[in-house]
Amino acid sequence: MQIQAPFELVLFGGLGDLAQRKLLPAMYLLHRDERLPDEGLIYCTTRRSTSREAFLDIVRNAIRQHVPGDCVEESVWQSFTERLQLVELDLSDEVHYQALRKVLSKDDVNRVFYLATGSDLYTSICRGLHNSQLIQSQSKVVLEKPIGHDYPSATTINAAVAEFFKESQIYRIDHYLGKETVQNLLVLRFANSLFESQWNQKYIDHIQITISESLGVEKRAGFYDHVGAMRDMFQNHLLQLLCITAMEPPSRLESDAVRDEKVKVLRALKPIIGGAITEKVVRGQYDAGVSDSKPVPRYRDEPGVEPKSMTETFVAAKVEIDNWRWAGVPFYLRTGKRLAERACEIVVHFKEIPHSIFPLQHKNTMANKLVFRLQPDEGVRLMLCEKRVGPGMSVRPMNLSLNPANHKQTRVPEAYERLLFDVLTSNSTLFLRDDELLEAWRWVDPILQSWEESEQRPEPYTSGTWGPAAATLLLAKDGRLWDENS
Amino acid sequence: MQIQAPFELVLFGGLGDLAQRKLLPAMYLLHRDERLPDEGLIYCTTRRSTSREAFLDIVRNAIRQHVPGDCVEESVWQSFTERLQLVELDLSDEVHYQALRKVLSKDDVNRVFYLATGSDLYTSICRGLHNSQLIQSQSKVVLEKPIGHDYPSATTINAAVAEFFKESQIYRIDHYLGKETVQNLLVLRFANSLFESQWNQKYIDHIQITISESLGVEKRAGFYDHVGAMRDMFQNHLLQLLCITAMEPPSRLESDAVRDEKVKVLRALKPIIGGAITEKVVRGQYDAGVSDSKPVPRYRDEPGVEPKSMTETFVAAKVEIDNWRWAGVPFYLRTGKRLAERACEIVVHFKEIPHSIFPLQHKNTMANKLVFRLQPDEGVRLMLCEKRVGPGMSVRPMNLSLNPANHKQTRVPEAYERLLFDVLTSNSTLFLRDDELLEAWRWVDPILQSWEESEQRPEPYTSGTWGPAAATLLLAKDGRLWDENS
Repeated sequence: MQIQAPFELVLFGGLGDLAQRKLLPAMYLLHRDERLPDEGLIYCTTRRSTSREAFLDIVRNAIRQHVPGDCVEESVWQSFTERLQLVELDLSDEVHYQALRKVLSKDDVNRVFYLATGSDLYTSICRGLHNSQLIQSQSKVVLEKPIGHDYPSATTINAAVAEFFKESQIYRIDHYLGKETVQNLLVLRFANSLFESQWNQKYIDHIQITISESLGVEKRAGFYDHVGAMRDMFQNHLLQLLCITAMEPPSRLESDAVRDEKVKVLRALKPIIGGAITEKVVRGQYDAGVSDSKPVPRYRDEPGVEPKSMTETFVAAKVEIDNWRWAGVPFYLRTGKRLAERACEIVVHFKEIPHSIFPLQHKNTMANKLVFRLQPDEGVRLMLCEKRVGPGMSVRPMNLSLNPANHKQTRVPEAYERLLFDVLTSNSTLFLRDDELLEAWRWVDPILQSWEESEQRPEPYTSGTWGPAAATLLLAKDGRLWDENS
Repeated sequence: MQIQAPFELVLFGGLGDLAQRKLLPAMYLLHRDERLPDEGLIYCTTRRSTSREAFLDIVRNAIRQHVPGDCVEESVWQSFTERLQLVELDLSDEVHYQALRKVLSKDDVNRVFYLATGSDLYTSICRGLHNSQLIQSQSKVVLEKPIGHDYPSATTINAAVAEFFKESQIYRIDHYLGKETVQNLLVLRFANSLFESQWNQKYIDHIQITISESLGVEKRAGFYDHVGAMRDMFQNHLLQLLCITAMEPPSRLESDAVRDEKVKVLRALKPIIGGAITEKVVRGQYDAGVSDSKPVPRYRDEPGVEPKSMTETFVAAKVEIDNWRWAGVPFYLRTGKRLAERACEIVVHFKEIPHSIFPLQHKNTMANKLVFRLQPDEGVRLMLCEKRVGPGMSVRPMNLSLNPANHKQTRVPEAYERLLFDVLTSNSTLFLRDDELLEAWRWVDPILQSWEESEQRPEPYTSGTWGPAAATLLLAKDGRLWDENS
C-alpha cells in the first residue's frame, strides 16, 4: 500500500502537546522509513506568531525527545524540514481559513485535516474549511477523542461534521487500536486455530482489561476535572479494546466488515442501569500517597481541581456481553490515575482444568492465560504449565514470551505511525465509525447520569495503590482476583 | 519418594552394551545426585572371568564416555565403586545361581533383577532364580524389549515369567517412556486446558510420530536381521508413544490407571489386515548411499546380513484409532535406519483455520503444530502464527520453544535414570503391563505374517534419505506431507 501523492496533512493544534509528542514524531519516522511519497507537505497551524526558525526548533526538540535515538539523523531531519510548513491561524476566525486556502493545492489531492483540538472546536473548524472550499472529494478529517461528553453531545458533533464530510471521509482515531499488539491480537486470534477455537464461553473463564497510569492529572487538571476517567479512558479506549477482543471473526479484514463486528459487541453489552450501577461499577478518586517513591497530593488538592471535585480518577466495571459467545464470561475493565504502575494489558483467563491427575502440591496447576501487553512495553505472553525438569512429576507455571521485539531487531512502530499512514492511504479499519461512537456513549450515559445525581463522592484510594478496595471486592465477589504485576 | 534401603540391583548382562551405555551411567548419576540410599549394591553378572580391577576399568570407561563431563568427579566415582560387585555367572548353569545366592542378602529386601539379555533367556533366568530361592516378595524383575517375536512367543514368555513373579513384580521397560519430554507431554496435555480441550478429532488434523536413525545395523546385524524394524522399534516404542499421545485422561497418575488407558488405545487400533496392509503399511530396506558425508553399503551387503535378506529396515504406517476422540484422525508412524537424520518426534498437527481474513500472500497462514522432540535433544515447540512486526498485516509462522533445558540450568535426566529409580521405588506407571504387550503383538502380527508370506522384497531406499517413495506417497494420498527437518 502506497500513499497517494501529493499529500497534504494539516495539523490543527499543530504545535500542541499531541502534535509534539506523537504526530510530528510519527510523521518523521514515516519519512525516515521512506514510506512517504516525495511530494507531500505537513502544515502545522498555530495561533501564535512564530518564526520559521523557532518553529523548526520546536519540532526538532519534539523529535529528539520522542523518537528512538538511533532514528534521529541529521540528513533525515534536513530533508524532513522541507515538508514542514507553518500556518498562523486563528481557528475561530473565518478569514484565516482563506489564508490556508492560499497555501493548499487548488486540486483535489490526498488532503488530511487532523483536528488535534478539543471537540468543541470541531464544528467551527469544519465550517471554516467548508466555507473556504477546502473540502474536496479526496479530503479527510481526523477527529481526536473524546468526541462529546455524552450521547446527545456526540450526536450533535457527529451531525455537524457530517454536514461537511461524508462518513467515509471521517476518521475518528483511538490510538490504542494502532498499537502493534492490538494488530497481533487480531492475528493471534484469527490465524491460529489453537486460540480462536477456544475464544468463547466454553473455554474462557473471564477477561481483564486494564489501563493504569502512575501519573496524576498533571497539567491537564482544568480539562480533566470536567471529564473524568469514564469519559477520558473508559468510554473510548477500554470499550474499544473490549470490542477488538470480543468481536466475532469479520469475513475480511476490511473497514466495514471489522466495524460491523465491533458495533455488534457494543450493542450486545448488557446495560448497567439502576441498582446494578453501584453493584457493577466502582468509581474512585485518588488520595495522597506515594508514587514513584515521591509523596503526591490528593486529587482534590491538585492545582486546577475543584476542592470538592466529584470527578472520578478511577473506574472499574464488570461488563457482560449478551450473546452466545460470551454469555457468562465477565469482562472486568479498569482504568485510573495514580495507580501502582503504568500498564495496559488485556488478559484472557482460560478455564481451569476440570480435574488434576497430578499429585497435590500447593496450587500445582493453574489456569492458562494469554496476556496482551500494550504499554509500557508491547508484547504477548502465554502462561502454560509444564513439568519441572528432573525427578518426580511436579508441575510448574511457565511464562512464554511471544514478544515480537524479541524475535528480531525490528523496531515496533508507534500507534500514530500506523494510524497516520492508514489515514493517508484511506484505510479506515482501525478508526471508529459514527455508530460505534454513539453506541459507546449510549451504554455509558446511564452510569454518568447516576453519578451526577448521586451525592456520594467517588471512593477514595491511596495514590500508588491499585485503586479503591471496592474494586478488589468487585472481583472477589466472583471468587477472582485482578492480575497485578502480571 | 525414597528408595527403600537396602537395595540390591542385579544386572544380568552386567557388562554388556546396554549396561555400559545406559544402566551403569544412570546408576552413577543417581548415586552422584544422592538419590540412592547409603545401603545399596549393584551386582554385575558376567560370563567371562574378570578381575575386579579390569571390571572397574570397564565401568569407569563406560561412565566417562556416557555421562556428561561435568558430572564425572573422582570422589563420586570412588564412593560409587563401593556399590559395584562383580559376579561370574553362566546364565545357563543352575549351579551358578547358588553362587549369586551366597552374595545376596538372605532377607526379603528391595531386590531388582534386571534382565539385559535376549528374551530367549528370560525363562531360564527366572527358573534359575526361583530354584535358588532368590525371588522373595519384594523382589522385582525388569524385562528389556523385544519381548518375544510375535503374539504366541510373547504369550509364552509372559506365562513363563508369571510362574515365578507376580504381575506386580514384573517391570517391562520401554525407555522411550522414561524420557523427560514424554513426562512433559503428560503435563502439557493434562495440566493445560488450552491443549487438552483441543486434543481430539474436532481440532486435530493428524499426528506424526517418527523415530529415525542415521546409523545402519552396525554390530547388531546378526540380531537385527532376524528381527527387523517392526519388531525392534515399531511394535514397542512407536506404539507406546502413540498410546501416551492418544490415551484418555487417566483418573490419577497411577500405574494401573495409566496402563488401563494405554491398553484401551491398543484395543481400539483399527486392525490392518488383508489388502489394507499394502495400502497402509510401507516396509523398506536401505540401499547404498551417503550417510554423514560417507558412502555406506546397502543393507544386504552389511557384514552379518543374509545377502537375500527380506528384513525391513524401515516401516511407515497409517494407523487409525476407532474411538470417539480419534475417529478420522490418522496417526502416521515411521521408523528406520540409515535415514537422513537421527530424531524422535511426536508432531501434533492442529486443523487449519476454516477461513483466513488476512490478505492473501503465499501461504500466509499455516496450521498450528505442537512438536515433542525426544532425541537427539529433548524439547517441545509450539508453532503459531503471529503478525510480522511493522506496517501492514502480514502473518508469519512463529516457532516457540518450550524447551525445558532453556529455562534453567537443570540437567535433563536420562530415561534410564528415571526408570531405574522408578523400579527401585516400585512405581510401575511407566512400564508395560502384560496385556499391553500382548495387545501390541496382536495388532502387529497380521502385518508380520503377510510379509513373511510375501515374496516381494521391502522397497529399497537410498541411505541418507527419508525412506522409500512409497512412504511419501502414503501421506501424499491424503494430501499431507511428513515433517522433515522440522
